[in-house]
Amino acid sequence: MSPHLAAWFAGAGLDRAHLAIDLAAVGARYRALSAALSPTHIHYAVKANPEAPVLRLLAEAGANFDVASRGEIDMCLALGIAADRLSFGNTVKKRADIAHAYAKGVRLFAFDSAGELDKLADAAPGALIYCRLLTDGAGADWPLSRKFGCADAMAEDLLRAAHGRGFTDLGISFHVGSQQTRLAAWDAVLDRVAALYDRLAADGIHLSLVNIGGGFPARYRGPAPDPIRYAEAVAAAVAARFGSARPVAVIAEPGRGLVADAGVIEAEVMLVAEKGDGDPRRWVTLDIGKFTGLAETMDEAIKYRILTPHDGGPTGPVVLSGPTCDSADVLYEQTDIRLPLALREGDRVYILGCGAYTQTYSSVGFNGFDPLGCSCV
Amino acid sequence: MSPHLAAWFAGAGLDRAHLAIDLAAVGARYRALSAALSPTHIHYAVKANPEAPVLRLLAEAGANFDVASRGEIDMCLALGIAADRLSFGNTVKKRADIAHAYAKGVRLFAFDSAGELDKLADAAPGALIYCRLLTDGAGADWPLSRKFGCADAMAEDLLRAAHGRGFTDLGISFHVGSQQTRLAAWDAVLDRVAALYDRLAADGIHLSLVNIGGGFPARYRGPAPDPIRYAEAVAAAVAARFGSARPVAVIAEPGRGLVADAGVIEAEVMLVAEKGDGDPRRWVTLDIGKFTGLAETMDEAIKYRILTPHDGGPTGPVVLSGPTCDSADVLYEQTDIRLPLALREGDRVYILGCGAYTQTYSSVGFNGFDPLGCSCV
Repeated sequence: MSPHLAAWFAGAGLDRAHLAIDLAAVGARYRALSAALSPTHIHYAVKANPEAPVLRLLAEAGANFDVASRGEIDMCLALGIAADRLSFGNTVKKRADIAHAYAKGVRLFAFDSAGELDKLADAAPGALIYCRLLTDGAGADWPLSRKFGCADAMAEDLLRAAHGRGFTDLGISFHVGSQQTRLAAWDAVLDRVAALYDRLAADGIHLSLVNIGGGFPARYRGPAPDPIRYAEAVAAAVAARFGSARPVAVIAEPGRGLVADAGVIEAEVMLVAEKGDGDPRRWVTLDIGKFTGLAETMDEAIKYRILTPHDGGPTGPVVLSGPTCDSADVLYEQTDIRLPLALREGDRVYILGCGAYTQTYSSVGFNGFDPLGCSCV
Repeated sequence: MSPHLAAWFAGAGLDRAHLAIDLAAVGARYRALSAALSPTHIHYAVKANPEAPVLRLLAEAGANFDVASRGEIDMCLALGIAADRLSFGNTVKKRADIAHAYAKGVRLFAFDSAGELDKLADAAPGALIYCRLLTDGAGADWPLSRKFGCADAMAEDLLRAAHGRGFTDLGISFHVGSQQTRLAAWDAVLDRVAALYDRLAADGIHLSLVNIGGGFPARYRGPAPDPIRYAEAVAAAVAARFGSARPVAVIAEPGRGLVADAGVIEAEVMLVAEKGDGDPRRWVTLDIGKFTGLAETMDEAIKYRILTPHDGGPTGPVVLSGPTCDSADVLYEQTDIRLPLALREGDRVYILGCGAYTQTYSSVGFNGFDPLGCSCV
């Protein structure tokens, strides 16, 4: 935890779990990632953390924005971010929301199906539209289902169809899976994009954009690549295939990789207990759980690092649990978590790497608990 | 869907997914369930649906309330529900929240550990406290982890310790697992409670309460027992063990079983698409998903029934998906869901059995989508 955040928590006198974002850390990461990825330009994935101070800081630093919904578009516009800096990256949108975005000036849209192409032809004529490829997300910690993207042959057909319907600015996008720690995942899909580029170019359809998505990893438990070295390697993989040989604009959509490491949640230990059931593990209940911000512990996918006031002393295995009366509100039961034996009711613990995909996942009031509060400091 | 709800939706002119609760259906179910369970008294599990009109209706009908948090306590008190009608059923509570509840007049508390007994002895002297037994939840659709309860021998020790610390009103609780369709689950645990009762009585410790929890099933896909016959069978299983032989008050905590069947969500089909990946299934995207109300589709646990405007026509297999850019926002991919081949973008569909565990699970704004709205009509 940065000394800045540690000092903020020390003075905050919190009586419930709370997230704090170190804005300076977000700014520093943006500048480093931006330099490492250059000339690829960053469209920050707003869904990772839409707090106004985060968006304002990134806008001033020069970022563009990937938005998932009409709500996120309106949020950015309300902050004075110009519509031509937004990419409507959700491959499935309501027709009325496409029209709303287009009327506001958004000119960059994702799609991955004939039905969505119909909507775009209807509601966003002349926009730059990019077709998302299906990837398997192998190596990513947060599961990537088959939800987004289509097969390469179908993408090629859709791009030809779009060209035939008057779209002259076309692109391809993909996503290697969130928290993707395997660099080789990028090479494989970039090869597919280059092949598609060539097949279309052979017929006089010249793509103008490649969107390499997100997936840039943050630091959780276990080994993680250095974020900047990682981005440089991705940039090299892009440069090997695009640039002079295949002249396209390239954009990336980091979300987690930009903000996760800058956020820390302070939580309180509500209870340390045994079950008397032969399991030697203690059950530790925190005042934050799966439904108040830590949704990414679903299936124990994201494994957070946790600091306690007793670190350094002897530890023992625990099951880590959230505060609601829902039996699914267990953070880690399969994962081997060890916490100090000295841990007690009332202790404050610090959960690291919580700057992305936490407070907006928080439920409106499940079990009567308030949503996770967030301070940008 | 009841004609009342159908008429309400027809006149509502909704432009986004929305939940409607048929209040008359909640009232009717309460009266039927209450009669079937008598003399067991109902403490409605507020977390299932804390909408004020639902709480008010149940309060007027005579229900008591099971609350999970200080937030739910304050919600009930604000509606004029007396504190002595509340049971603070979360086995893990902050010491300050126990003190708050006690100061307001709450005198019924759950626990399942030595640490929590310490808190109750400190902050709720003289209250009626009940110890929760660990159960395995086999046969329940919504997973029951080992999160709540302790082993029988430990419960016995804790109750003896509580008695030694001056608690004279003691009880035992359990939960057979939410959406528990297997009646035999009740017999097994009621036998354990009766045995515990007898062992304690032999030493002059006479329990005054058995809390049989919830688990009363609602109607989703697949066969489900008739809710009233089911409750009558549970009441018979209770009567066979408690009453004249073992004179205790018995309470139950239905949540889902009271309100789920009374709620329907109207949603819009945003897209029907193919992937070109050899999977013959269509992908149907709705404007409601895992993060805007349908959290119980986690691991495809709860399988909702869905009505469409084309029911009766030919159907084909689908993958059902939510609107966010999160790849985990897929409702059903493993479950065999078939929807009409005529289904189109813009169609309204109706998801049944959504009165419990939907709107409060909704995220505050994940991906920029508003939380699920709810109308009690």
